[in-house]
Amino acid sequence: MERLDAARVASVLARVAEARPRVQCLTNTVAQNITANMLLAFGAIPSMAIHVDEVAAMAEGAGAILINIGTINAESELAIPKLLEVARDRGKPLVFDPVFVELSPLRRHIAGQVLRLPDILVRGNATEMATLSFDLAAARGATRVTTGKVDRIESGAASFAVAHGHPLMTRVTGIGCAAGALIAACCAVEPDKAVAAAAALTAYGIAGEIAAERCRGPGSFEVELIDAVAAMDAATLAARMEARQ
Amino acid sequence: MERLDAARVASVLARVAEARPRVQCLTNTVAQNITANMLLAFGAIPSMAIHVDEVAAMAEGAGAILINIGTINAESELAIPKLLEVARDRGKPLVFDPVFVELSPLRRHIAGQVLRLPDILVRGNATEMATLSFDLAAARGATRVTTGKVDRIESGAASFAVAHGHPLMTRVTGIGCAAGALIAACCAVEPDKAVAAAAALTAYGIAGEIAAERCRGPGSFEVELIDAVAAMDAATLAARMEARQ
Amino acid sequence: MERLDAARVASVLARVAEARPRVQCLTNTVAQNITANMLLAFGAIPSMAIHVDEVAAMAEGAGAILINIGTINAESELAIPKLLEVARDRGKPLVFDPVFVELSPLRRHIAGQVLRLPDILVRGNATEMATLSFDLAAARGATRVTTGKVDRIESGAASFAVAHGHPLMTRVTGIGCAAGALIAACCAVEPDKAVAAAAALTAYGIAGEIAAERCRGPGSFEVELIDAVAAMDAATLAARMEARQ
Repeated sequence: MERLDAARVASVLARVAEARPRVQCLTNTVAQNITANMLLAFGAIPSMAIHVDEVAAMAEGAGAILINIGTINAESELAIPKLLEVARDRGKPLVFDPVFVELSPLRRHIAGQVLRLPDILVRGNATEMATLSFDLAAARGATRVTTGKVDRIESGAASFAVAHGHPLMTRVTGIGCAAGALIAACCAVEPDKAVAAAAALTAYGIAGEIAAERCRGPGSFEVELIDAVAAMDAATLAARMEARQ
Repeated sequence: MERLDAARVASVLARVAEARPRVQCLTNTVAQNITANMLLAFGAIPSMAIHVDEVAAMAEGAGAILINIGTINAESELAIPKLLEVARDRGKPLVFDPVFVELSPLRRHIAGQVLRLPDILVRGNATEMATLSFDLAAARGATRVTTGKVDRIESGAASFAVAHGHPLMTRVTGIGCAAGALIAACCAVEPDKAVAAAAALTAYGIAGEIAAERCRGPGSFEVELIDAVAAMDAATLAARMEARQ
Repeated sequence: MERLDAARVASVLARVAEARPRVQCLTNTVAQNITANMLLAFGAIPSMAIHVDEVAAMAEGAGAILINIGTINAESELAIPKLLEVARDRGKPLVFDPVFVELSPLRRHIAGQVLRLPDILVRGNATEMATLSFDLAAARGATRVTTGKVDRIESGAASFAVAHGHPLMTRVTGIGCAAGALIAACCAVEPDKAVAAAAALTAYGIAGEIAAERCRGPGSFEVELIDAVAAMDAATLAARMEARQ
């Protein structure tokens, strides 16, 4: 597995900051706030429409789409096919986050539908990705992002490992969900989805390392993480990536 | 355009702190938490009912009503007419926040319905207010609040400019939405809606200036902003308003 | 009324940290984020399913169930009977939080239905508990937890008073709602619900005292409270409980 070099990560981030892509997020209500704040800190724009009668309109002008089923409800279930249609017809990058798919037959069913769309990016933890292994193997052109102590990113063309981050990132709700949104923001400016994911997760993981040094628990960690994402720059990326090698 | 003097701002805030008005907020799920916390920091009480079968009952005893369409869904769409009815029949102040109205025909349609109610207060950014210019021109007795680098407040009787605040206020999700709730809290105690809005935005903007001096990014800015709103007093208002002239 | 000793509180907390119970929370969208973060800081796992077609599946493997009606909507209303069924058939501990029940006939109706289930734990403030006094008197085996300056916990077998906490705990939205989730986590590992509630509220109240010493307003209080819950240990419990006697 490759590692992205700092200049390439910085290049993706610079394009996000310049283009300020809007990410249309159909995401869980627990993580909406931190997801929106991470996108803003990253230089992107969040929109969180859910209504079946407008979700397509909101997605059409967006740079990327995020679908996260953490608090799927009857209405967001109906909105998902509308978003899949926009992603397909307009060629919008789509990031799918199958939260807790191992706990619910309904989520497995929905995940199966989403994974029929070619060229999507799926981000999950090891349990979620294992639960979906059958559907993932059949998915055409899917980019698979398995986050954990080391994040693993695999597409047909490339594979990357990202070894940044901190255990506190799993102790604050929504930090994993927000990672999906940052990946989506990078997909809006970088056509190679594996590179986009590796760039987002490298920057986010390094921000997590910085935040962990400054906090004294999960509450202050979240605050410091948002600050560290907003302050991320090429010099910090280069220094931290070199130190980790 | 006038500016409110510090004594008048302080008088509105003192009445909020004494009356502790409840604001019934039908607001977006991204901003609910920060909206509730800002209302509490301001001395008001949030309630966030959404169910069609109770939203009128919850609004009847409230001091003011907020409608924010940032994550409008099928159920909250049905709740809006119930809230408009209570506002009209009981003469409750109503603040409307047309989030992202420029992106969605559904939102324009809903905004058109809300703006048929006389005497409402509309708060939006320049793009949102421009999108609604036709409806706003036809709205009877509407108070128009356009927030930005300088906030502009216009009613039939008066117009105010508020030049406080900080750019970080646009980099944290829900800060603008919470402004609508603070305006609603002030409308519960101050019959002149333009004065109420100017008082809320002056205090909030000054809190933003204080928070910006103390933070090192958008994460810590949000924390400091809540603290600064809670600590706001007449002396701080007077000192900051004088310094800005 | 008894007070729990520090060793017993520490024993319940140690069992939560070891078992890491998942708490299936049907809770209000304002408090979801802080509820999830408090559960994680406490060593438990949050899940926040709401969809009628999966809420039972999500609850079946959980250690306890929380129902909070702060933003009850048409869908969560339908999900409640499914959760009551799982609680009854699988003997899962169920904590019920009747937010603002005094303001809405719909909430009183729903509360009446929930209180028909035997052996539930109800947590509310004095107004909410008084509104439900008739139903509570008829409820079989209910544990009644009335939070306030002194928390009072009453079951058929025992009664406890908890005199920890800080007034700032009422000035941040969701802190009371999160208390219900922490009680649920303790009920997953401690069969005596009154002991579970007393342990959760003692630890939470002490964390509130520590956070109040470190903050300068409600914004920083929330951050410090999460940190203090995550750092809670037997020595801190013993020292603070002794100091209060």
